[in-house]
Amino acid sequence: MIKTDILIIGAGPTGLFAVFEAGLLKLKCHLIDALPQPGGQCSEIYPKKPIYDIPGFPEILADDLTKNLLEQCKQFEPGFTLGERAETIDKQEDGTFIVTTNKGTKHQAPVVAIAGGLGSFEPRKPLIHNIEYFEDKGVEYFIKDPEKYRNKRVVISGGGDSALDWSIFLSDVASEVTLIHRRNEFRGALDSVEKVQELKNLGKINLITPAEVTGILGDRHVKAVVVSQAEHIPTEFEVECDHFIPLFGLSPKLGPIANWGLEIEKNAIKVNNALDYQTNIPGIFAIGDVNTYPGKLKLILCGFHEATLMCQAAYQIINPGKKYVLKYTTVSGIDGFDGSRKEAPKAVVKAID
Amino acid sequence: MIKTDILIIGAGPTGLFAVFEAGLLKLKCHLIDALPQPGGQCSEIYPKKPIYDIPGFPEILADDLTKNLLEQCKQFEPGFTLGERAETIDKQEDGTFIVTTNKGTKHQAPVVAIAGGLGSFEPRKPLIHNIEYFEDKGVEYFIKDPEKYRNKRVVISGGGDSALDWSIFLSDVASEVTLIHRRNEFRGALDSVEKVQELKNLGKINLITPAEVTGILGDRHVKAVVVSQAEHIPTEFEVECDHFIPLFGLSPKLGPIANWGLEIEKNAIKVNNALDYQTNIPGIFAIGDVNTYPGKLKLILCGFHEATLMCQAAYQIINPGKKYVLKYTTVSGIDGFDGSRKEAPKAVVKAID
Ligand SMILES: Cc1cc2nc3c(=O)[nH]c(=O)nc-3n(C[C@H](O)[C@H](O)[C@H](O)COP(=O)(O)OP(=O)(O)OC[C@H]3O[C@@H](n4cnc5c(N)ncnc54)[C@H](O)[C@@H]3O)c2cc1C
Ligand SMILES: Cc1cc2nc3c(=O)[nH]c(=O)nc-3n(C[C@H](O)[C@H](O)[C@H](O)COP(=O)(O)OP(=O)(O)OC[C@H]3O[C@@H](n4cnc5c(N)ncnc54)[C@H](O)[C@@H]3O)c2cc1C
Repeated sequence: MIKTDILIIGAGPTGLFAVFEAGLLKLKCHLIDALPQPGGQCSEIYPKKPIYDIPGFPEILADDLTKNLLEQCKQFEPGFTLGERAETIDKQEDGTFIVTTNKGTKHQAPVVAIAGGLGSFEPRKPLIHNIEYFEDKGVEYFIKDPEKYRNKRVVISGGGDSALDWSIFLSDVASEVTLIHRRNEFRGALDSVEKVQELKNLGKINLITPAEVTGILGDRHVKAVVVSQAEHIPTEFEVECDHFIPLFGLSPKLGPIANWGLEIEKNAIKVNNALDYQTNIPGIFAIGDVNTYPGKLKLILCGFHEATLMCQAAYQIINPGKKYVLKYTTVSGIDGFDGSRKEAPKAVVKAID
Repeated sequence: MIKTDILIIGAGPTGLFAVFEAGLLKLKCHLIDALPQPGGQCSEIYPKKPIYDIPGFPEILADDLTKNLLEQCKQFEPGFTLGERAETIDKQEDGTFIVTTNKGTKHQAPVVAIAGGLGSFEPRKPLIHNIEYFEDKGVEYFIKDPEKYRNKRVVISGGGDSALDWSIFLSDVASEVTLIHRRNEFRGALDSVEKVQELKNLGKINLITPAEVTGILGDRHVKAVVVSQAEHIPTEFEVECDHFIPLFGLSPKLGPIANWGLEIEKNAIKVNNALDYQTNIPGIFAIGDVNTYPGKLKLILCGFHEATLMCQAAYQIINPGKKYVLKYTTVSGIDGFDGSRKEAPKAVVKAID
């Protein structure tokens, strides 16, 4: 059982900043995310694109924002349960909640903050009748640990940035990379398309287009995929491999959270925006894209504010009756849970003679 | 008469970010501030101190935050009335407001956003009976344009960062700089104290401590100040000069805004935080430190969120009935009023063969 002060569901920008604000109040956080990495939509959908409306950044790449937020909160030592989906929530007699993931990991906390964005990112799966049987037996929808593919034969399918970028990356790791796409045209950053062309010319990526994977062969593990190519004469052939990685994008689904007894409106969780972004269940908050209220804007900067106010209310739940006096970080500095301290250089009082 | 879409009173971080958000909605802004420079508390009270809780910045100097916010909004070409205090507001028959400053400058807009922080920054004045007579005749409480002092004889009094830093700066501009302080000890950044010591040793700054300016001499302009030194034997003498600049800090005063018919609570303006941060007078909003509502935190990041939601409501007032669909800056880019365009590099669709 993982125990913490505030259990945050969703490690997007809102969840990450909540860790920092909670830390200022000496509250510890643990984050659960269905994705293998933190960053939410920023890291999953548009990591290399610039955002122009983060206050104080005339321009920042979404990936850099994630990196900065991780750096900003790291002294408060958040815990992470990544690659798992929060599935059920149970209120205990002592008032705490237990949240269990699809893989059975249990987390306990007096406060739960849902920062789930548009929902848990779930892969779009190709229509292959036996694909679910091979999940975790050589079929993966996202790449958690690239080292897993060292000296393996890998088939990737898809025609967007993920398929391009992972083909490039794995061409240096795997013993063989085959990229299969149902069109000749790829859609992505110019760099990436050109790099794949170059690696193909060098024989470091096998390219099969226009084609589709229509079957998977193997018994206890993937041994080959069946590829159908329909350009002139329909043909079907096998490509031997150890891993098949379909990268057709991830789509967010509110999923199990929709059944937690929370008031839902337009696929989002209703909260009390006049006070603290608490839901209809006391002790459960919803912040960032996942919530709704009159005038709600699904913007990153709004999630930051909501996270900050939520933490104040969480503090009251966890420290009932204790008065909290707001301190400016500039004036009081920051004491990390890791023993680090950040503070402004002090003014001196010094005679001049 | 200066006309604009949103008239913003206060050019602190909240007011500056409001310019950016308004610009995204194609609304133009004009800012009024009592200070000679934008940045509010950040530039006036702690320009060289680090802030740790601006989301996405593990650390940023207050001055750099101001610079970034100015850079971020510059393509929306805000107008500025600096060094003037907004004094009166009058609602017109056509529903617009006219705001007049203490210097008589008039501004007209359908929406007024008060981003006045803790109030208009007013200088702390030394107790010298005839000082007000000499204001604008050689007595200045803040430095708007350093060039004004070129080849002049300047007396500065004060013992903090402003007194130290302006003495250093003007020692290169003025023909003579005299720094007067009632103690031998100065309070400021170590660098600054050491630099003043060095310039004093080089004869580039005259230092008179412990001493006080107790009188001003001149007829139509400052000609000298009377200095009292009480260390051993009380003595009084004159120092000839063209300018006397007392730098004893600025203190914020809500001031005239308190009489505009707005609901005030604890020296702040009550707003509807459940919707759009509007005050009890339709068309007048209050954002940032200047407002209050249940759970209010006087933090910069909260001002950013409030400014963003306020702009949406302003849009509805200015474009009644027009539906606004939120666009992500990453997806739609930004079109400046100056003709500039920022946008994310587009994905290409390109064949690989
Ligand atoms: C193309 C694009 C461009 C954008 N441009 C901008 C822009 O310019 N400016 C701007 O402000 N915003 C922009 N946005 C929106 C911005 O990305 C979102 O507002 C922001 O990501 C919301 O952050 P969040 O932390 O609330 O949620 P998210 O970033 O969506 O993160 C939520 C996380 O929660 C996880 N999760 C949800 N449910 C569960 C569960 N049950 N179990 C485990 N994990 C779960 C998800 O996997 C996800 O990682 C853009 C969005 C897109 C798609
Ligand atoms: C020492 C110190 C450290 C701080 N540290 C932090 C920190 O670490 N994190 C954080 O989030 N916040 C911090 N703050 C608070 C932060 O500075 C404020 O929240 C922020 O400046 C508020 O921004 P604002 O734009 O709302 O108002 P302000 O910055 O106060 O700006 C308001 C402006 O309005 C002008 N004005 C007001 N009335 C009038 C009028 N009638 N006519 C003309 N002009 C007018 C004023 O002159 C002023 O320039 C700190 C504050 C101080 C003093």
